[in-house]
Amino acid sequence: MAALKLAIGNKNYSSWSMRPWLALRANDIPFVETLIPLYTDNPADKEQILSFSRAGKVPVLVDGDITVWDSLSIIEYIAERYPEKKLWPDDVAARAYARSVCAEMHSGFMALRNECGMNLHRPVRPVTLSADAKANIARVQEIWRECRTRYGAKGPFLFGRFGAADAMYAPVVHRFRTYAIEVTSETNAYIDTMLALPAFQEWTRDGLAETLRIEKFEDA
Amino acid sequence: MAALKLAIGNKNYSSWSMRPWLALRANDIPFVETLIPLYTDNPADKEQILSFSRAGKVPVLVDGDITVWDSLSIIEYIAERYPEKKLWPDDVAARAYARSVCAEMHSGFMALRNECGMNLHRPVRPVTLSADAKANIARVQEIWRECRTRYGAKGPFLFGRFGAADAMYAPVVHRFRTYAIEVTSETNAYIDTMLALPAFQEWTRDGLAETLRIEKFEDA
Ligand SMILES: N[C@@H](CCC(=O)N[C@@H](CS)C(=O)NCC(=O)O)C(=O)O
Ligand SMILES: N[C@@H](CCC(=O)N[C@@H](CS)C(=O)NCC(=O)O)C(=O)O
Repeated sequence: MAALKLAIGNKNYSSWSMRPWLALRANDIPFVETLIPLYTDNPADKEQILSFSRAGKVPVLVDGDITVWDSLSIIEYIAERYPEKKLWPDDVAARAYARSVCAEMHSGFMALRNECGMNLHRPVRPVTLSADAKANIARVQEIWRECRTRYGAKGPFLFGRFGAADAMYAPVVHRFRTYAIEVTSETNAYIDTMLALPAFQEWTRDGLAETLRIEKFEDA
Repeated sequence: MAALKLAIGNKNYSSWSMRPWLALRANDIPFVETLIPLYTDNPADKEQILSFSRAGKVPVLVDGDITVWDSLSIIEYIAERYPEKKLWPDDVAARAYARSVCAEMHSGFMALRNECGMNLHRPVRPVTLSADAKANIARVQEIWRECRTRYGAKGPFLFGRFGAADAMYAPVVHRFRTYAIEVTSETNAYIDTMLALPAFQEWTRDGLAETLRIEKFEDA
C-alpha cells in the first residue's frame, strides 16, 4: 500500500494545511509531505498546486488514485479510512456537535481570520480588533467551553481525545497567542493542552524554521 | 419518533437554507419547517435564530435532543441517519470527490456569492462581474462537468442520482439564471435537470410567493 501524500503550504502561514496535517500526525498515520511555497512570484508554484488540484488550493491529499482537496473533506476521508483513530466521536449527538463546530470554523470566523492571520513567527503583540473579530473570539471560547463541558469528560481535548475538531481549531491557538488575545482561564487550559501535543509542537517548530516571508501577511 | 425540525431563512434569499431543505425534501424525508425572517429590524427574529443555535445562523436541524447547525454538517447528519437515501456515493473515490466539491462550495466562491446573491424574484438581467466571479463561474462549470463525466453515468445528477453535491450547488442554478450568466450547453443540461426536480420547484415556488424584501440584497 503506497503511503498517503499531503500537499501543504508554508507551515508558518498555512492554517488550512495545518488542520489535516495535524489530524494525520497526531494519530501516527504515515504520510509523505510536499510543501509548496504560497503566494510567491514564481508561477511554477501555483502550477504545482494546480497539478494536485484544479481548485488551486492546498491542502490536498493523494491516496493512490484518489485525490481529496479541502481541509474538511480530507478530514472526513481520513476519518473513514482510519476508523480506529476515532477522529469523530462515537456518540451520535457528540459527532453531530463536532461536525457542526468544524463546519462553523470551515465557513466562518472571517473577521478573526482576516485580522489575525496565522503567522507563527510574528512577534507577540496585540492589535486593535473590530467588533466582529471580538465576537468571533467570544464564540470560539464558547464553542471550546461547550464541547469540553458536554463531551470532554474523558480527556483534555474538545471531545475528550484528540479529534477532528481539535485539528480544525488548532490554528486559532496560534492566533490567540501571537495577537496576545485575552482569554478565560478555561480557554488557557485548552490552549495548554494543544501546546503540549507533540504533533502541534512539530508543526510549530517546522514553521518557525522556515525563512520564506510573505510580505502581505506581515503586519507593520 | 418525533419529526425532524428544520429552521430556515426566507426562501427567496437564503441559499444556505435551501441546501439541506432540498436534501431532505428531494429524498422524501419528513420534516417540520420553521421559517425565520432574516435581517429584519425585529430583534425577536435574531433571538429566534439564537434559540435554535448559538452560532446565530440558519439552517439548523433539530432531531429530538440533537441540534445540528450549518448546512454541511446537517447534510452529513442526514446522510448518516438515512443511509438508504445515499446522499453520498457508495464508491470511495466518488464519495471523496463529492465531499471535496461540497467543501469547496462551503468555503469558497466568495466573489460569485457576493456579486450574484441568490434572489429568486430578481428580474433576469446580467451584471458586470469581477474577474474573480468569472473564475468562480468557470470553476463551477468545470466541477459539474467533471462530476458528471466521471461519476454521473447512472443518472442526470452530479453523481448519477440526486445527492449532497446537487443540494450544495443548487443555489448556483438560480444565480446562473437570474444573472443571465452565459454557460456551456453541458451546464445547461444540468441546470435543466435541477429545474425539473420537484423539490427544487417547490422551494422556488414558495420563495417567489414570499412578500418580504431585504433591501440590501436587491440591486438597483
Ligand atoms: N477551503 C479550503 C481553503 C484552502 C486555502 O485557502 N488554502 C490557501 C492556503 S492556507 C491556499 O492554497 N492559497 C494559495 C492560493 O490561493 O494560491 C480548505 O479548507 O482547505
Ligand atoms: N456556514 C453556514 C452559513 C449560514 C448563513 O450564513 N446563514 C445566513 C442565511 S443564508 C444567516 O443565517 N444569516 C442570518 C444572520 O446572520 O443573522 C452554513 O453553511 O449553514
